[in-house]
Amino acid sequence: MSDSHAAELHPPSAGLQKLLADALAGQKAPLARVLSLVENEAPEARYVLDTTFPRTGHTVRVGITGPPGAGKSTLVSSLAQILRAEGERVAIVAVDPTSPFSGGALLGDRVRMPKLAGDEGVFIRSMASRGSLGGLATTTSEVCDVLEAAGYAWLLIETVGVGQSELEVAESADSVVVVLVPESGDGVQAMKAGLMEIGDIFVLNKADRDGADRAAADLKSVLALKPAAAWRSPVLLTEARTGQGVDALRRTIGNHLQHLREKGLLSVRRRRRLKGHVQDLIRARAGERLRARVDESRWDAILEELEARRLAPHEAARRLWNEAWPEDAALGPAHD
Amino acid sequence: MSDSHAAELHPPSAGLQKLLADALAGQKAPLARVLSLVENEAPEARYVLDTTFPRTGHTVRVGITGPPGAGKSTLVSSLAQILRAEGERVAIVAVDPTSPFSGGALLGDRVRMPKLAGDEGVFIRSMASRGSLGGLATTTSEVCDVLEAAGYAWLLIETVGVGQSELEVAESADSVVVVLVPESGDGVQAMKAGLMEIGDIFVLNKADRDGADRAAADLKSVLALKPAAAWRSPVLLTEARTGQGVDALRRTIGNHLQHLREKGLLSVRRRRRLKGHVQDLIRARAGERLRARVDESRWDAILEELEARRLAPHEAARRLWNEAWPEDAALGPAHD
Repeated sequence: MSDSHAAELHPPSAGLQKLLADALAGQKAPLARVLSLVENEAPEARYVLDTTFPRTGHTVRVGITGPPGAGKSTLVSSLAQILRAEGERVAIVAVDPTSPFSGGALLGDRVRMPKLAGDEGVFIRSMASRGSLGGLATTTSEVCDVLEAAGYAWLLIETVGVGQSELEVAESADSVVVVLVPESGDGVQAMKAGLMEIGDIFVLNKADRDGADRAAADLKSVLALKPAAAWRSPVLLTEARTGQGVDALRRTIGNHLQHLREKGLLSVRRRRRLKGHVQDLIRARAGERLRARVDESRWDAILEELEARRLAPHEAARRLWNEAWPEDAALGPAHD
Repeated sequence: MSDSHAAELHPPSAGLQKLLADALAGQKAPLARVLSLVENEAPEARYVLDTTFPRTGHTVRVGITGPPGAGKSTLVSSLAQILRAEGERVAIVAVDPTSPFSGGALLGDRVRMPKLAGDEGVFIRSMASRGSLGGLATTTSEVCDVLEAAGYAWLLIETVGVGQSELEVAESADSVVVVLVPESGDGVQAMKAGLMEIGDIFVLNKADRDGADRAAADLKSVLALKPAAAWRSPVLLTEARTGQGVDALRRTIGNHLQHLREKGLLSVRRRRRLKGHVQDLIRARAGERLRARVDESRWDAILEELEARRLAPHEAARRLWNEAWPEDAALGPAHD
C-alpha cells in the first residue's frame, strides 16, 4: 500500500496484530472477535480488511436463499457435511435480521446446526442484517474475505431470500441456490420474491411432502420462461433432514462453477462484486463526511424548514452537500 | 425556493406542468405517469417532488408487512373498503421485488385487489423494489408524497416483511401493522424476520385455521418480552377474506395514531423519516458525482488492481474519492 494510505491509518496495536495472526492461524475464538470488529465497523476493521484482502480470491462462495421455513439451515448443514467428508474446510455465514431481544442474530450456532458443532474444520457465523452502514452485501463480503484468509475454502452464505438487501447478498456469491418447499414451489410466490431471477440452481426441499413432484414440474415450467442461456437452472429434489439429494446438489454446484470458469463468467461476477463493494464504500464515506461536517444544530434547522414545508428534501440535500463540500459547489450547477 | 436552486433545475416543460396539474387534480392516468417518473428517478422527478412536497405532511401512512402468503393484500383491500365507507380517499402502495419476466412489479392492480377496481376514491400502485438507486424507503416515501399531494388522505404501504430494505419501508410509516398467520405465529419466525421490533399492531390473519388461538397466545407471550412502553402492541385476530376483525383493526390503528399524537411521537417519527430521506439523497448524490467524475477506463484500472490483490477495497475507495473530490483530499487524513 502507498505511503499516503499508511499515513491515513492508525497503526495497528500489538494486541490487534496478535489477534489477527491467531485468527488467520485458524483459532476460532480470535477469528470470532475479528469478525465482530468487521461486522461492527470498528476502527480496527480497516487494518483487518487491508491485511486479509490480499489473501482472498480463491474460495468458492455459494449463496443459499429461500423463504423462511424452507429448511435452508438444515440443507446448509447437510451440504457442509458432504464438503467436510471431501476434506474441505467450510465456513457458514448465516444472515438473520437482528432480533430486538437478543440484540444480534437470533439463533446460536449450536441450535442452528447441531451436527456441525465441535467440528474443527467448520466455522459458523451468524450475522445480523440490520444497521450495517456500509450495506449488508458489503459487510457480508468483508466477513467472507476474512474467513477465506483464515483458510476456509468453501463459504456457504445463507440468507432469507425475501428482500432487496438479502437478494443482493445472495447475488454476491459465485453460485446461488434457491431453496423452496412444495407449498412455495408454485412459482408465483418465488417470482414475487424475485428469486427466479437470481437462482442458478433450484432445490425443492422437503420432497417427501405431498405435491413435491407437481411443484417441481410447475417450477420447471416457470423457469422455462426465462430467456435462453447457456446455463439452464436445474431443479433438484432434496430432503435435507435425511440428506437425500444433497449429494446431487453438491455435484450440481460443482458443475455450475465449472461452467462459470469455462465461460469466463466467474471473473465477470467477481469483478461486478468488487465494483459494487467499492461503490458502497464510497457512498458510506460520503455519509461519514457528512456526519463529521454537519452538526446537530444545523440538522435541526434544516429539519424545521422541512417540517414547515418551506424546503423540499432534494433542496435540503443540495444545501447540506454544498456546505459539506464547498469546493464541490464552486464547480457550479452544470454537475447537477 | 432560492434562486440558486431554480438555476440548478431544468425549467419544467409545459407538458410536464400540465401532466402534474392533471395528476394533482385527481386524474389517475396522469398520476400513474408522474409516479413512474419518480420511481424511475427521471430528470423530471425533481420538479415533481419539489412541487408536491409542500402539500404533504397531513396524511396517515400505515405500513402493512408480514411474510409471503400471510394475506396482506386481502387485508389491505378489506381495510381500504372500510376507509372508503368512511368517505376517505385511499392510496395503496404495494412494494414487490421486481419479477425478471415482467420487468416490474408482478401482479396487476386488478389481480391484486379486484374489489377495489373501478373505485374512483382508491388508487393502487405496485412498485418494484429492485434497483432503486436512492434506496427503497426513499423512493417509496417520494411516491407517497405525490399520492398525498394528489389528495389521498390514507396511504397503505404493503411490503413483504422479510428483508432489511422492506423493514425500512415499513418503518417509514406512522403505524406499522405486522400480519402473521397461525403457522408463522409461533413468534420464532417473526423474531427471526425482525418483525417483532417494528410492529405497532400485530394481526393473526386466517384466524379460522387450526391453532389460531394458540398462536395468538404464543405471540402475546413473545411480545411481553419487549421492553415496557406506553404503547403495548395488541394482537388482533382477523379473517381478511370475509372481513372479520378488520373493523377492529381499523379502530386499533386509529387508537395508535391518537396515542402517537398525544405523546408527541408522531412528529418524532416523521422527523426521523425526513432526516433519513435527506441522508439517502446525499449518499445518492455522492454516487452520481462519482459516476460523473470517474470514467470507465479508470474503473477498469482500479478493478484490475483489486483483482490482482495489489489494492484493497477501502484503499480503492479512498483513491477514487480523492480523485473525484481533490479539494476534499487536500483537507488531509485527519478526516479519516
